[in-house]
Amino acid sequence: MPFVQIAVTKDGVTREQKQRLILGVTQLLKDVLDKDFHLTHVIISEVEPDNWGLGGEQVTDIRQRQNKS
Amino acid sequence: MPFVQIAVTKDGVTREQKQRLILGVTQLLKDVLDKDFHLTHVIISEVEPDNWGLGGEQVTDIRQRQNKS
Amino acid sequence: MPFVQIAVTKDGVTREQKQRLILGVTQLLKDVLDKDFHLTHVIISEVEPDNWGLGGEQVTDIRQRQNKS
Amino acid sequence: MPFVQIAVTKDGVTREQKQRLILGVTQLLKDVLDKDFHLTHVIISEVEPDNWGLGGEQVTDIRQRQNKS
Amino acid sequence: MPFVQIAVTKDGVTREQKQRLILGVTQLLKDVLDKDFHLTHVIISEVEPDNWGLGGEQVTDIRQRQNKS
Amino acid sequence: MPFVQIAVTKDGVTREQKQRLILGVTQLLKDVLDKDFHLTHVIISEVEPDNWGLGGEQVTDIRQRQNKS
Repeated sequence: MPFVQIAVTKDGVTREQKQRLILGVTQLLKDVLDKDFHLTHVIISEVEPDNWGLGGEQVTDIRQRQNKS
Repeated sequence: MPFVQIAVTKDGVTREQKQRLILGVTQLLKDVLDKDFHLTHVIISEVEPDNWGLGGEQVTDIRQRQNKS
Repeated sequence: MPFVQIAVTKDGVTREQKQRLILGVTQLLKDVLDKDFHLTHVIISEVEPDNWGLGGEQVTDIRQRQNKS
Repeated sequence: MPFVQIAVTKDGVTREQKQRLILGVTQLLKDVLDKDFHLTHVIISEVEPDNWGLGGEQVTDIRQRQNKS
Repeated sequence: MPFVQIAVTKDGVTREQKQRLILGVTQLLKDVLDKDFHLTHVIISEVEPDNWGLGGEQVTDIRQRQNKS
Repeated sequence: MPFVQIAVTKDGVTREQKQRLILGVTQLLKDVLDKDFHLTHVIISEVEPDNWGLGGEQVTDIRQRQNKS
């Protein structure tokens, strides 16, 4: 039954990495709460860095600043 | 006032199908809870099959396996 | 596969109404997109009227105003 | 700690407007709840007008109707 | 049309503070994107500190550690 | 930056289990995507079995049926 939504910035997450996230979360829910593997849904949403804000700034700007420093 | 979010895999849902989903859900909320048609919002999110996991697998892989069997 | 989240104000929705919403949405997705009944998840969240805002006001205040008029 | 999700229709929101939304919401949470600027996350999701329904209609159709009137 | 979801830890947010958040966000969307006041929905969800994790810890534990230091 | 939302049915998940879920997901995102531990947020929402539908039925009814069989 669990439903997991993972939001990350859109940074070229590979197919293989998505597979590891999906399997890892599903296994974790099995191990911790004994949830049925075949009823666990996971959705990965990839958010543009311009559309994600932290500390009042867009992630794009945070990263530019960090690259300059 | 209701807010409905429908997540489905990105499989070429047509405009007409989206219209039927929106009208159907809005009518359902009117029929069951007498909710105001003009205050019911519906958002349809279409998720890449690579980004949706079920039973620890990506939907893409589940479908490939099913097509082979 | 579909995952549907229905947010409504917390107004004493009965068990039977929840059942009708769940069945109705699941049937709609079957009818429109031929989705597998047994893979369709629906979550109903009931939000306190104080925690839902529309037009800059809390629903509680909107309703009080409407009741006085 | 706050996490804010802003869903708007995909209408060409500019980078600068996204920045103002992110800063504005983060400042609001600081002012009202004294939340730590650097722990406040904001995600802006832009939804296709075909995928957003109001009053049983797709926003696309609502806008077309309004433009004709 | 905008739909805003604000998740904060459940720390006794007052009615008045919720009202200020709702009005503030709605005004911000009016100012920045000229969105219709009467179509902007805001939902505030209050999450138990045990149910919110940051840096691999529950907020409850983070706060206990901070209170001791 | 990642934000993870885990929805499970409200079945008396213990504090310790929540802690293991939070740590496990945060570690997984570190291992797979090298995400910063201290920027990873996890929210666990516990949904009443009456409010969660699968296959057109409320989880409560599914469980009652399973217990009788």
